[in-house]
Formats: sequence, C-alpha cells, structure tokens
Amino acid sequence: MNKYAVEFIGTFFLVFTVGMVSIDPGAGALAPLAIGSALAVMIYAGGHISGGHYNPAVTLAVWLRGKASRGDALAYMTAQILAGAAAALVVLYLKDNSATSAAIESGPALVAEFLFTFALAFVVLNVATAKSTEGNSYFGFAIGFTVLVGAYAVGPVSGGVFNPAVAVGITIMGLSELSNIWIYLVATLLGGAAAALAFKSLKLSAD
Amino acid sequence: MNKYAVEFIGTFFLVFTVGMVSIDPGAGALAPLAIGSALAVMIYAGGHISGGHYNPAVTLAVWLRGKASRGDALAYMTAQILAGAAAALVVLYLKDNSATSAAIESGPALVAEFLFTFALAFVVLNVATAKSTEGNSYFGFAIGFTVLVGAYAVGPVSGGVFNPAVAVGITIMGLSELSNIWIYLVATLLGGAAAALAFKSLKLSAD
Amino acid sequence: MNKYAVEFIGTFFLVFTVGMVSIDPGAGALAPLAIGSALAVMIYAGGHISGGHYNPAVTLAVWLRGKASRGDALAYMTAQILAGAAAALVVLYLKDNSATSAAIESGPALVAEFLFTFALAFVVLNVATAKSTEGNSYFGFAIGFTVLVGAYAVGPVSGGVFNPAVAVGITIMGLSELSNIWIYLVATLLGGAAAALAFKSLKLSAD
Amino acid sequence: MNKYAVEFIGTFFLVFTVGMVSIDPGAGALAPLAIGSALAVMIYAGGHISGGHYNPAVTLAVWLRGKASRGDALAYMTAQILAGAAAALVVLYLKDNSATSAAIESGPALVAEFLFTFALAFVVLNVATAKSTEGNSYFGFAIGFTVLVGAYAVGPVSGGVFNPAVAVGITIMGLSELSNIWIYLVATLLGGAAAALAFKSLKLSAD
Repeated sequence: MNKYAVEFIGTFFLVFTVGMVSIDPGAGALAPLAIGSALAVMIYAGGHISGGHYNPAVTLAVWLRGKASRGDALAYMTAQILAGAAAALVVLYLKDNSATSAAIESGPALVAEFLFTFALAFVVLNVATAKSTEGNSYFGFAIGFTVLVGAYAVGPVSGGVFNPAVAVGITIMGLSELSNIWIYLVATLLGGAAAALAFKSLKLSAD
Repeated sequence: MNKYAVEFIGTFFLVFTVGMVSIDPGAGALAPLAIGSALAVMIYAGGHISGGHYNPAVTLAVWLRGKASRGDALAYMTAQILAGAAAALVVLYLKDNSATSAAIESGPALVAEFLFTFALAFVVLNVATAKSTEGNSYFGFAIGFTVLVGAYAVGPVSGGVFNPAVAVGITIMGLSELSNIWIYLVATLLGGAAAALAFKSLKLSAD
Repeated sequence: MNKYAVEFIGTFFLVFTVGMVSIDPGAGALAPLAIGSALAVMIYAGGHISGGHYNPAVTLAVWLRGKASRGDALAYMTAQILAGAAAALVVLYLKDNSATSAAIESGPALVAEFLFTFALAFVVLNVATAKSTEGNSYFGFAIGFTVLVGAYAVGPVSGGVFNPAVAVGITIMGLSELSNIWIYLVATLLGGAAAALAFKSLKLSAD
Repeated sequence: MNKYAVEFIGTFFLVFTVGMVSIDPGAGALAPLAIGSALAVMIYAGGHISGGHYNPAVTLAVWLRGKASRGDALAYMTAQILAGAAAALVVLYLKDNSATSAAIESGPALVAEFLFTFALAFVVLNVATAKSTEGNSYFGFAIGFTVLVGAYAVGPVSGGVFNPAVAVGITIMGLSELSNIWIYLVATLLGGAAAALAFKSLKLSAD
C-alpha cells in the first residue's frame, strides 16, 4: 500500500506543478525548470519506496523490463491517474484565470511525444534499474531533467506531456482538449514500450 | 552550540537571499532558482553538523518523526527566527527601494502553503532521515529544489514562503503584511506536521 | 554494437534538442539550459555502456588519452555523425519555421570553439577517465553543464557548437552555413586533442 | 606544478565566463547560472588535483584552516591572478562592444562582498575539507551554486565578485573601475578569513 500512496503523492505534486506553472500567471519560460525539478525531487523523496515512476508510461516500461509485477503495475497506473485528476481539481481551485489550450497538429505531436517519452523511459531504465548504475546519486536529476529538456525541445510542438497522468490532469484543467488525449496516450505508451524493447535488445537487462 | 550557530548561518543566508532577490532590483523570474539554490548549498554546508533544517516547520517535522530532542527543536526554531530577523535588517540596509507586498487571499494561500510545506518536509524526511537513503549526495539538491518548485508553482498565490523564519523575515522587510503572518505560521506548521504523520503512517521510519 | 547504438541514441537527442530549442519558436535565453541538460541526462543514461561521448572531439580526446581503441573511436564518430544528421531530418520535419544562420567571424569563432571544446574534453577526461574520480555521481552534470557554460559564454561569438556532430546537424538544419563548417571541425578537434595533451602532460593519466 | 596549472586553467575559464556573459551581448538574467556552473564544472574537473580553489579568498581560507602550505597558497594565488588577467585579454579580443562599469556604493558593496565571500568559503571548508563530508559528489555543485546565489542576491549591489582574481579580470576588462578594486580585495579576503575563523571556532576542523 505504501508504494501506491507514494506514487499518488509524487504524481500529485508533478501534475499540480504542471498546472500551476502553465496557467497565467505562471512561470513563463522557466516552467520546464519547475516541472523537471518537481519530478526530480519527488523521485528522490519516493524512489526508495516505490521506485518513483509517477508516470504510467514509465511503469509500463519498467513492467516490460521485468522489474514490476503486473499487479503492481496496474495499481501504480491507477494511483497515478487518480493523482493527476486530484491535482487538476486543486489547480482549478487555486487559479482564477482560465487555462487556454494551444492548438497542436497530431502528426508532429505524436512524433514529439513518442521521442521524448522514449528518452524518458530509456533514462529511467538505465539510471534506476541497471546493475552497473546501482547506488548512484544522480537518478532523480537525470530523470527529472529529461522532462525539462523535452519541455523546452518539443513543448511548442506537442505541449511536452510524456505522461498519461499528466495528460489526464491537463485535460481536466482545460490546458488540453479532450479530443487530443488519444495522441498523448498512444504516443507515450508506445514510447515507453519502445524504450523497454531497446533496453532489452541492447542486452542491458542483466537483471 | 555549534548546531544552533549553523542553523543561524544557514537560515540567515536563505532569508537574506529571499529578500535581496525579491525587492527591486531583484532576480525577476530567476528568483526561485536563487532561493532554492541558497537552501541547497547551505544544507550541503551545514547538514553534517545540524541537519540543515533552516526552517521551524522542518524542525517540527523532524522532531515529530523522532530525530530531534524537544530541547534541540526549540533552540533550532529560536536560532532560525532570530536569523530571519537579522537577515531582514541587513536587507533593509542594502536595498534602497522599498519592498511592496502583494495582496494574497487567505483561502488559496493557506492551501498553497500547506501543500508545499508538506512536500518540503516530506522530501526532507525521506532524503535526510530515512535508513534506505543514507549516504546519498542528493539531499541538498532535493530539498532546495523543492522550494524552487514551490516558488514557481504557488508563488503567485501565496508568496511561496513554506517557512516561518522566512515569514518573519519578509514581514520585517515589508514584503508581506503583518496581518497575513498567521497564514504562513498556521499553514507551514500544519504542513510539516502532516508530512511527519504521513512519513510515520507509511511506516517509513524504520528507526 | 551496443556501444555504437547508445552513442547514436545519445547524440541524436543532443542534436535534436539543439535544433528544436534554436529554431523559432524555441527556448530563447533558456536554450543553453536545455542543451546542457540534454547532454547531462544522456551521459547518465548511456555512460555505463559507451562512456557517453556523443561528440567526435571527445572521442578523439579519449582515444588520445588511451581509453578507446582506434576501431571503437572510428565507429563512435561514425555513429555520432549519423545521429547528428538523423536528428536534423526530424527537426526539419517538426519545425515549420525556417532556421536562420547568424553571421560569425572566423577568427573569434575559432578561438571560442577551441577554448570551450578544450574545456569540455578536459572536464570529460578528469571526471570520467581519471582514477581519483572513479565512482562519482557528478560526471554527467559536470560534462553537460560545461556545454551550458560555453553556450552562454561564446554562443554569440561562434554559435556554441563544441562538437562536430552538432556542426553537421545544424548545417543540415540551416542554422549554420556550409561554408563555416570547417571552423567547427578544425577548432573542436584541435580543442579535444589539446585537452588530451594537457591531461597527459599534467601526468593525470595514472593508467 | 600540476596543481598550479590546474588552478590557472580553472580560474581562466571562470573569469573568461564572467566577462563573456557580462558584456553585451551576454547572458542577461541567466549570467549567474553560467558563472556558477562554470565554477562548479571546473571544480569537478580539477578538484582532485588542486582542490579547485580558483579564488585567492578561498585559498586564504583553506590555508588558515590548515589544509594548504604557505608556499602552495602563494603559488595558487599567483596562478589565479595571472589566469584572471589572461582571461580578460581573451575577452577583450572576442568582444566588440565595450564593457560599461556600473556605479557601486562602497559601504553596501563591502557588506555584500564580505557576506557572500564568507558564505562561499564557509561552503568550501565544509563540503571540501571536513572529515564528515568526505567522498561526497556534491562539492562542485554546492560551491559553484553559492556563487550563483550571491550573483543574484547582491549582484545589483556590488557586482557579485567574491573573488580577487575575478576583481582583477573585470577591472582589466573595464567592467569595474580601478578605483573600486580595493573594495573587492578587502571584503573578499576578510570574508574568507572570517569563514576560516568561524569554521575553526565551531570546532568543525577535526582534521
């Protein structure tokens, strides 16, 4: 149960931060620094208990890589999605201004979300599940700042989501249209699965 | 005595930085980076002596979690509050411009301050007092950058204080109205206590 | 083969990030943070497999320092150049706006690129190949943020490339003129070689 | 000899970065991030050889704390000052625009420079010379980002120098008036000495 509670807490603060820094008045050009740091610090806080996924696409990758049971994976995803929704409700309470959703094109958005969710899950599998990097102190920084990089790199193309729980949260907040949520779900889950495949075919999973 | 002196020094530089970057000419959109980094570097400098709390809400959480005596907790809080006041006086000497206090609404501010002081203390308890994260090199970054995240996320709602010693300092500087100080004291102490409760009920406190 | 694949993946995301944050709408003044962080996180992800060079000038330095075979060095460089070209093609697909190349002067640009590629390779050799820094957790941050520093310091002079694979990528993207690519190739390879020479003459290569 | 060469290299890149990001076109509000990161990465690169001082005020503090011989201290300071001057000459070659020096008031500037050089040297002594923090991976980040904090906090008051070698460099570059250099020399050396005194009187120097 503790693991699921920690996944809820970490995902809550990640999605809460995404909403607060994206809706006016927000953090402007610094929003990706805030979001990447939110993920980093929550991973450092909760990683020793739950692994610090906070992202169903990451949980999918870790499950495919063989480091999570199916039961845990489903419970993790449920906790993450619920946390994304809960965070959205608190954001809506705190923010007077209405969120506005930017128009995105589905082709480029799918590519952008796929690429950086692949990068994110690839970083996770290497820094948090590989034998040869065990005991390092950089895992949270590496994973969190991958999201910072992605938000700067492809934020203008796709919104920079890389996470189904974030997709649910920003849709509830009105930062993204419901008609676009399939883009995030498809691209991020494919990206996570592709990272697991790459990791395993590179025979990096010595267990 | 050394511990209390270190708590004074670290809190002094934290509150001093808060004031200097918040009063015009300050650090603008980069103020949270400066503040979060100030906390991070002071934790790395003093953590091995005092634990590097620099925050009565954190000291409360550490005491409730059983990692500080009541005597030490009271002395820490005293040193922190005095340091906040001292820092405010130096800021007032250095800054020609008058500080202006932003209007805040008590309901949203209480929620915002509670949430991120909870996050801050939750991070502290996990990265600095848990058995399974002992010896890590990320504790200062994780704790400091939680404040960075909170300042970006809820700064426009509540000022982003998360710390009674900071509340005292910014009230003396004129960045916050005296009539609002109860918001910070109530919300941050509740947030710290809630984090200790969460940490303990999650049975993360193996010793 | 795994090493070469990892060099391809890491260089791809580095050059992809360079392009995405540099072509309007990009990351503006935060572009160096995104680029330096991209390098840092990819080094943390792939360092344990390939060493995380992602840069022919770094591979040259590591080869001269005696930590890579000639065969591996050539394969690394090939993978890096191919990744730079591939990233450029994806950037061109995703970015509607055309890139514009800034005019640079060859003399100052050569000095600027030489100096910071020297710094970059000097940092790499010390944090990733020296006996006395083995097992550290800062190598990715140190290497990635050297590029951040260089991009802020000499970006306005030379573009802030420090990497032949990036030079190829930005030339294909139209961010740099083909007639200038010799500047980057000459200066960065000389910088990498000079760093290896400095490292060895300082007798830092205990093995 | 190697130690002195490394002090030259590290200080060169620090002062070079200070100049390049401060003279138009520079890094604007991000200049402190570049400068703090320059110091951090050079400390990670050279710390294992020379200790990575790159600052006569830090060398003074380390000598007073008993971790450097008088001969080494003098040679370090000489190398640092020469490096600051050399960096200034390269900056003058690369920058077309003239530097302009901001007016500063000596009283507030002395206080500001003293306070943050104290903080800087206090951080150095704790993270790089104390028994109980040996083997950590955060020393470069902690020291470098202390300068970032100081530059944001008191940069508008004093220029944010904290380092006699930087003072020499920016005076040669024309970023600071010769008639002000005493402020930096007096305040930073006093700050370094005060940190050593504080460290020793707190009995933190168990050796």
